[in-house]
Amino acid sequence: MLSEAHVAIQPVGRRVTVPLGENVFSAVRSAGVASEAFCGGRGICGKCRVVVREGSQFLSDLADSERKFLSQSEIRNGYRLACQMIVRSPGNLTLEIPRESQVRRQRLSVLGIERSTRPAPSITKHVLHIPPPTLQDITADLERLLNTLKSEHQLGGVLINYVSLKRLPAILRSKNWTVTAVLRNSREIVDTQPGDTSDRCFGFAVDIGTTKLAGYLVDLKNGSVASTASMMNPQIPYGEDVITRISCTMKDAGKLSELQMAVLGGVNKLLSDACKIARVEPRDVYDVVAVGNTAMHHIFFGIRPDYVALSPYPPALQSSLSVPAKDVGLDVNQGAYVYSYPTIAGFVGADAVADIMATGMFEAKETTLLIDIGTNTEIVLGDSRSMISCSAASGPAFEGAHIRDGMRASAGAIERVWIDPQSFEPSYRVIDDGKPEGICGSGIVDAIAEMFKVGLVDNTGRMQPNNTRRFRRDEGLPVYVLANAEESASGKEVIITQRDVNEIQLAKSAIYSGTSILMKRFGVERERIARVFLAGAFGTYVDPESARMIGMLPDVPTDRFEFAGNTAGSGARMALISTDIREMAEGVVEKTKYLELAGLSDFQEEFMKALYFPHQETERFPTVEKLLNSRHEKQTP
Amino acid sequence: MLSEAHVAIQPVGRRVTVPLGENVFSAVRSAGVASEAFCGGRGICGKCRVVVREGSQFLSDLADSERKFLSQSEIRNGYRLACQMIVRSPGNLTLEIPRESQVRRQRLSVLGIERSTRPAPSITKHVLHIPPPTLQDITADLERLLNTLKSEHQLGGVLINYVSLKRLPAILRSKNWTVTAVLRNSREIVDTQPGDTSDRCFGFAVDIGTTKLAGYLVDLKNGSVASTASMMNPQIPYGEDVITRISCTMKDAGKLSELQMAVLGGVNKLLSDACKIARVEPRDVYDVVAVGNTAMHHIFFGIRPDYVALSPYPPALQSSLSVPAKDVGLDVNQGAYVYSYPTIAGFVGADAVADIMATGMFEAKETTLLIDIGTNTEIVLGDSRSMISCSAASGPAFEGAHIRDGMRASAGAIERVWIDPQSFEPSYRVIDDGKPEGICGSGIVDAIAEMFKVGLVDNTGRMQPNNTRRFRRDEGLPVYVLANAEESASGKEVIITQRDVNEIQLAKSAIYSGTSILMKRFGVERERIARVFLAGAFGTYVDPESARMIGMLPDVPTDRFEFAGNTAGSGARMALISTDIREMAEGVVEKTKYLELAGLSDFQEEFMKALYFPHQETERFPTVEKLLNSRHEKQTP
Repeated sequence: MLSEAHVAIQPVGRRVTVPLGENVFSAVRSAGVASEAFCGGRGICGKCRVVVREGSQFLSDLADSERKFLSQSEIRNGYRLACQMIVRSPGNLTLEIPRESQVRRQRLSVLGIERSTRPAPSITKHVLHIPPPTLQDITADLERLLNTLKSEHQLGGVLINYVSLKRLPAILRSKNWTVTAVLRNSREIVDTQPGDTSDRCFGFAVDIGTTKLAGYLVDLKNGSVASTASMMNPQIPYGEDVITRISCTMKDAGKLSELQMAVLGGVNKLLSDACKIARVEPRDVYDVVAVGNTAMHHIFFGIRPDYVALSPYPPALQSSLSVPAKDVGLDVNQGAYVYSYPTIAGFVGADAVADIMATGMFEAKETTLLIDIGTNTEIVLGDSRSMISCSAASGPAFEGAHIRDGMRASAGAIERVWIDPQSFEPSYRVIDDGKPEGICGSGIVDAIAEMFKVGLVDNTGRMQPNNTRRFRRDEGLPVYVLANAEESASGKEVIITQRDVNEIQLAKSAIYSGTSILMKRFGVERERIARVFLAGAFGTYVDPESARMIGMLPDVPTDRFEFAGNTAGSGARMALISTDIREMAEGVVEKTKYLELAGLSDFQEEFMKALYFPHQETERFPTVEKLLNSRHEKQTP
Repeated sequence: MLSEAHVAIQPVGRRVTVPLGENVFSAVRSAGVASEAFCGGRGICGKCRVVVREGSQFLSDLADSERKFLSQSEIRNGYRLACQMIVRSPGNLTLEIPRESQVRRQRLSVLGIERSTRPAPSITKHVLHIPPPTLQDITADLERLLNTLKSEHQLGGVLINYVSLKRLPAILRSKNWTVTAVLRNSREIVDTQPGDTSDRCFGFAVDIGTTKLAGYLVDLKNGSVASTASMMNPQIPYGEDVITRISCTMKDAGKLSELQMAVLGGVNKLLSDACKIARVEPRDVYDVVAVGNTAMHHIFFGIRPDYVALSPYPPALQSSLSVPAKDVGLDVNQGAYVYSYPTIAGFVGADAVADIMATGMFEAKETTLLIDIGTNTEIVLGDSRSMISCSAASGPAFEGAHIRDGMRASAGAIERVWIDPQSFEPSYRVIDDGKPEGICGSGIVDAIAEMFKVGLVDNTGRMQPNNTRRFRRDEGLPVYVLANAEESASGKEVIITQRDVNEIQLAKSAIYSGTSILMKRFGVERERIARVFLAGAFGTYVDPESARMIGMLPDVPTDRFEFAGNTAGSGARMALISTDIREMAEGVVEKTKYLELAGLSDFQEEFMKALYFPHQETERFPTVEKLLNSRHEKQTP
């Protein structure tokens, strides 16, 4: 007997299973396409509209909350709220996510996939009914509280923090000796409150990206997300990439503190915004988890990141960190702590550990490859027994930097490109559907993959102008015009230069050669890689077929690629929800080996060979070869 | 074979033993008579002059440092420096403490007796030679330090505090990877310093008395006192006694903080003074122990003391306390903690526990009685198996308050009184030998004991004018003139009124009835009390025979009384020197029962009977009775 339904989610083509009795909200969310402005599945924001294309007979009837948000015609056309419809019987469902429910394409993707986690938070609240003192029983206030904690909740050996101790006498007496004790790890009282406040217990997870900050207010009672907030990292004015920011902190003694204050200001703003949305007081936030790459992590905690940028690149610490939130400077409960995952190495930081936790690859029997593409690309390969990792210096090309008409993935960026193999005329898709202003990372990968496919670029990366009106020469070098002046938003054409192609060659070669060395060291052939997780903003939007075409990703079947979304955020939430996850992360770091590519004798050779499209050793990319050959055959009958 | 010398110390008549090979400095100090301005026994201040009256043949030869401080005639007369003369062979010594070496009689007695304590401080320093990172070994800074701590010092499972972590990368590199790690309880790194700083490791013990503050800078490497400092408690303007100060904190929300700032300012001043004397940097002070009564303790830590003053008088906490010194507001190393002993009850606080630790009564086989006389007098009775304690509301009479011509024990106070049994003429001794201005606690006890002894006061406390020119009447009540106008400093006479006698009756009855109830509950007769420790400033200066004469102290032989001095300070130093002592204190509190006198049915009756001189049941004071009878026989032959 089946006890779950199979759900196909369109337009992303993702397939998930949903247990009977559960709603499809998390399934939709895990596909990375639901709106980021949601109410946490409580049916009160109406943002998670989906269209049931097939299998409505397996679902619960329309709920009142759904009638409130949906028009008669929407109901007729199969519209429902994902969080309100419950799977009643096993069967096959097809759901379509309409455009308005998709993540807004500003690409601050806030949600990532997330291993399901049983709530076991470090913070718990305990309501105590304490007998008041008498002349016959003059036990002190604290001991009186501790005795009740033991007798009513079986919690012994508990300590109290200094702030709570100072307030204790007044708090005990303000609601007639009924108090709520807030415990951390069942060992330390971090706050006490008059009366019963057990319904208010929150935590905050924050992903400190080099480019963006994403925060999640989580109800620690059940692990649900109460609200989310995101913003650009306020450190951007100090440098777009981590190395520039590290250099900045080295300028003078005050700069580190200045950068720390910038990011703290941002995180406090997110906290305050998320609390306002969910109507939560910041003092009811008792736990914080922060995740970021090693430089972001160090600066957030006020630790000098200098040496992370200098060979041999040691971080200040590898272990996980738990420090008082007030010492860091966060506007939450005075007794709260900030936790950070352990790191694997200077350039494979706590964010990569969060990726590993969120994808669940540390528990997988089959070999999994995780690639979190950024200026530094973290690559992890392995299974439940052991893992190996490295950092590839892929540079900022995928974020639009060092590309003639490159830009960030925001409105006006060309994000998809197709080139007609006969006419060599391009067609493209622009973020938010306006006129193009430039091209973002996924667009440039598409464009070069297409140019290579149709023969406008050869396997060494040299442009082959090939007599089309789309080509011209600029300072002696060929240029491919993707959008001419009339088509563009600015009146200036959007072009791909020979130098752009070379930039992408360097970037993709860094990623592939890193991956390839991990595979060699781990002793695994590409056929045995069961899944490839693409994490991070770029990883969510790149076309894996294009990436494989240029030889950036190894040649595995398309259906093994999986968009992981913002797994750093998911991993942070998991650590917030469960201390078991924190413990597991320690084990993960222990069984994950780090390879410093700069220290390897075979790296240089691997890198040189991987500069070719897709690779100098073409047998490594049979799928690409087959595709090129079939095209070649068509062209020369 | 004897392995120690017996030393008699004059003029206090104390007898101590000194092991062969040791100097007599601590013996002299333990007698409570050496100067408080000493160099810690290093022979560089010349303040510990003593005269060898007997047994010079058992001592080491004159050291160079002694020749430096002593004149030829002093050397001829037997002068030596106590800290420089070493006992070479067993024998009997008699040492006299010349006036200039005695504790200055301002009565801020800084030193108390002290159980000898093997140094086992919570703070230890460890010099580490750390291998720098290479491309082949990119272990993080922290883990690199922890690995060396384990390999060079066998210390595992060590954590680091946030402040030290933040500074770590720079500190490791500033003296070429040689660092000194400062560990707390062998578990937490509280500071790291470039290079080898193991010679600088200090702690600070402070006794927060209601009236005075006394601080001791201690070298944690060997437990020796590096310097001392004392001052009046800056809270005095807010009230002379604890109840007035507690009432003050209840006036408005800011007052508690104001009183806390006052005492913190004082302690920080002591710290800074003591550091200057010993040429120590405050950042090299890594541990603090603070001891005080429950009200002083609560205010120092910023805990509301309100409820200590309100029936049923529960303190905020009974357990020992360790909180970050920076959170309290002390100007010491950022990683330092402040420790406080546990308390027994609201009015038998951490200071009483310090007394118990300093006297060593918790280890004694025979029954010991400890009385720390103050506005509230803490009384503890017991032995190594169990103890019982109470607090007696003796009031401020012994500090000169509520006494017509009462004053604090400072220059100009009459501190000793004798009355001629024939002429009834008084003679007295004044602190600092000037003309009298008033009378302090020990003087008033002497005066009333003498008046009772010679029959000027009867056993109910009524004055018996007895026809001497020293008596007159004031508003119908008799007055005894101790010093007439011409003798006094102010030109006003110093007198003892009937009301003064009644005040002392109330005060001494509170102490005796508390003691007596403890003895009854503990099941011990006065003959079985092997030692009576008199602690605190008043306890150090009161004449035990006078106190016994009026029935304040139980009738035990004079040689069983021992002046304990400032045992709160000694107890604080012991906890600073040794964490074993802290652990023992937990055990002491566990085995010490507290009796709330107000809750006892027999207290009122005991109190009424003890109002008599020496007691309504005269058989309780056979020594006094015998003395009175012999005098009576003499007078009526």
